[in-house]
Amino acid sequence: MHEKKDAFRLESRCFTSVKGGAYVASERDSYYMKLALQLAEATSGQTSPNPVVGAVIVKDFEIVGLGAHLKAGEAHAEVHALAMAKEKAQGATMYVTLEPCSHYGRTPPCADAVIEAGIKRVVIAACDPNPLVRGRGVEKLKAAGLEVEVGLFKKEAERLNEIFNYYIVHRRPFVTLKTATTLDGKIATVTGESQWITGEEARADVHLLRHRHDAILVGINTVLRDNPRLTTRIAGQSGRHPVRVILDSKLRIPLDAQVTHTEQAPTWIFTTDQAPAERVKALTEKGVKVVKISSETRVDVEQVLAYLGEQGIASVLVEGGGEVNASFLQGGFVNKVVAYLAPKLIGGNEAPGAFRGQGVLSLAQSLHLKDVSVETLGQDLKVVGYLK
Amino acid sequence: MHEKKDAFRLESRCFTSVKGGAYVASERDSYYMKLALQLAEATSGQTSPNPVVGAVIVKDFEIVGLGAHLKAGEAHAEVHALAMAKEKAQGATMYVTLEPCSHYGRTPPCADAVIEAGIKRVVIAACDPNPLVRGRGVEKLKAAGLEVEVGLFKKEAERLNEIFNYYIVHRRPFVTLKTATTLDGKIATVTGESQWITGEEARADVHLLRHRHDAILVGINTVLRDNPRLTTRIAGQSGRHPVRVILDSKLRIPLDAQVTHTEQAPTWIFTTDQAPAERVKALTEKGVKVVKISSETRVDVEQVLAYLGEQGIASVLVEGGGEVNASFLQGGFVNKVVAYLAPKLIGGNEAPGAFRGQGVLSLAQSLHLKDVSVETLGQDLKVVGYLK
Repeated sequence: MHEKKDAFRLESRCFTSVKGGAYVASERDSYYMKLALQLAEATSGQTSPNPVVGAVIVKDFEIVGLGAHLKAGEAHAEVHALAMAKEKAQGATMYVTLEPCSHYGRTPPCADAVIEAGIKRVVIAACDPNPLVRGRGVEKLKAAGLEVEVGLFKKEAERLNEIFNYYIVHRRPFVTLKTATTLDGKIATVTGESQWITGEEARADVHLLRHRHDAILVGINTVLRDNPRLTTRIAGQSGRHPVRVILDSKLRIPLDAQVTHTEQAPTWIFTTDQAPAERVKALTEKGVKVVKISSETRVDVEQVLAYLGEQGIASVLVEGGGEVNASFLQGGFVNKVVAYLAPKLIGGNEAPGAFRGQGVLSLAQSLHLKDVSVETLGQDLKVVGYLK
Repeated sequence: MHEKKDAFRLESRCFTSVKGGAYVASERDSYYMKLALQLAEATSGQTSPNPVVGAVIVKDFEIVGLGAHLKAGEAHAEVHALAMAKEKAQGATMYVTLEPCSHYGRTPPCADAVIEAGIKRVVIAACDPNPLVRGRGVEKLKAAGLEVEVGLFKKEAERLNEIFNYYIVHRRPFVTLKTATTLDGKIATVTGESQWITGEEARADVHLLRHRHDAILVGINTVLRDNPRLTTRIAGQSGRHPVRVILDSKLRIPLDAQVTHTEQAPTWIFTTDQAPAERVKALTEKGVKVVKISSETRVDVEQVLAYLGEQGIASVLVEGGGEVNASFLQGGFVNKVVAYLAPKLIGGNEAPGAFRGQGVLSLAQSLHLKDVSVETLGQDLKVVGYLK
């Protein structure tokens, strides 16, 4: 209760600049903030563990500075934009997708730089997600006499940093669950044929998803059935290889499985006391990290996520199979669902779906996705929605 | 083989006006034809058994006549448009979504009326689907010296009359199969709870689908489980009630089932020799039509469709359940699929999907939907695609 109250107070601190209800943006404000959001979005995947941020400085209806945070440890978006604007920042308006920082991190506080440069007005999309510093940047700017508006495209800005925002508050990875099914929800035929349900464009998109997550997680059955590499393969580019996480309670993984080749990407296997000692040894010698989560039978998903969070893994892409998907769904661990739907029908009650287990018993318990969006990728549909 | 050759010749007869490859439309031509398509679309469901047709007459870049076919037995679209244009039709261009008719039906041939009115140029979207008369309208217009262009928005025009076009050629009803599932393909929870998966907007849209079909078809299990009325209920309007068709091999239908009340809409039950005679009698007395399709165990879908076609039923909306859906899918009887997807997850291998049975065995056999479109209806998605 106390914590909740505090959070509310801090939330208010950031948003007090919105006078008389919701802040109504002018068309020009929207135009420039959209540009700042585009700059931020363009750097997705390259700023981890920092958030993406874009900034635009405008004077007399002309853009005089543009910036984005490009890499952790390097200059923040505001600093890049101010460097471009130089003396034109004097009296200008800055549009920035995230509240300027007010504390010394690896770089000096951006709020100070904004004030010193003579910026007159700052329009901010989203507040700092960290409840401990949230609102302090806004306070500092206002204390120095700057005009501050907060909340323009707030939701869009928050979604851009959904992983960062969740991780910084919860210290558990943000979980994206991906499915690739036919229109009637099947991941394979009754004979087990599953490659490929979706088309090339959708499969290429999955590699972009991988690129944007710190870890990919599958169950041992997927390894035994498909022997996947679980690496990121983006045409013409290297991409970022997430940590490959395998849930394997009995450590049944073959020693020649593709994921045991750890030159390209690290592999962490979560197992239980049922794991044979000699196999743990053999895998460890191959460079695989074997983590025993004490549990009677199955690997406990909650403990896995806690461990991953402690290791600095801010995001996990769950790529099934059906048992693992069901565990994550039933445990309430899924933040976001990305469902690729191929315009095909397989039919049959025995052909497998994306989630095994029993499922929910009543419609009231069914999991409702929020903020659902849909796009077409080649012949397929990509449906994205949120569970938290 | 002979038939195929003939069909090709007739197809050519209609399309010969397209000189030197595909007809490239001017921007103005596209503009007016789109309007004609809109007029046609607006009358969907009210012209049966005739096709929907729209016509626009343009002279010196001004619209001088508009028309649509409103009701079977009444004037055709071209005639309405000519009546509006009067003497301005002289030297004008007519845009019409369907090839003008060349034969005496319930009204005189439109091609003659177009010629007599002095129309100089006719732009036609689609040819007459009837292979026996296809192209004759175009020939007549050209023989009279009119400039004729065919094929502008051909596909759009053909889709507008997809039911009519299919029925007139095959004399079997056009089959639309509707499903309403969660994003993971479930029609109910494992306990059987199914009302409601989709939201109000999607359910209202189903009533529009019913309104546009001549019959609704379900299996006996759906009647026993849900006891539906299977009528068309459109807010503030009466709507057209399709014939309710039930497949019930053993005639297990309760005598007090809602569909046995035939005041609002006719009910036809297809059964086999297994049907008890006294039950046939009782149902017949209630006004239900009981049709015995001789078959050992199950009602043969192909025979049902043949019977419906003979009775003038040009379109059937299949609304499941899973066994009936599977029979239609596996038999290759489905023309069009309308899949409503709620952004919810139920999970579980036991929770039922839209198609029972075994499904296809290999991905190569999976049924690929063509010309897929997607729209949002409230929270839900509506995916439409074609199997033939």
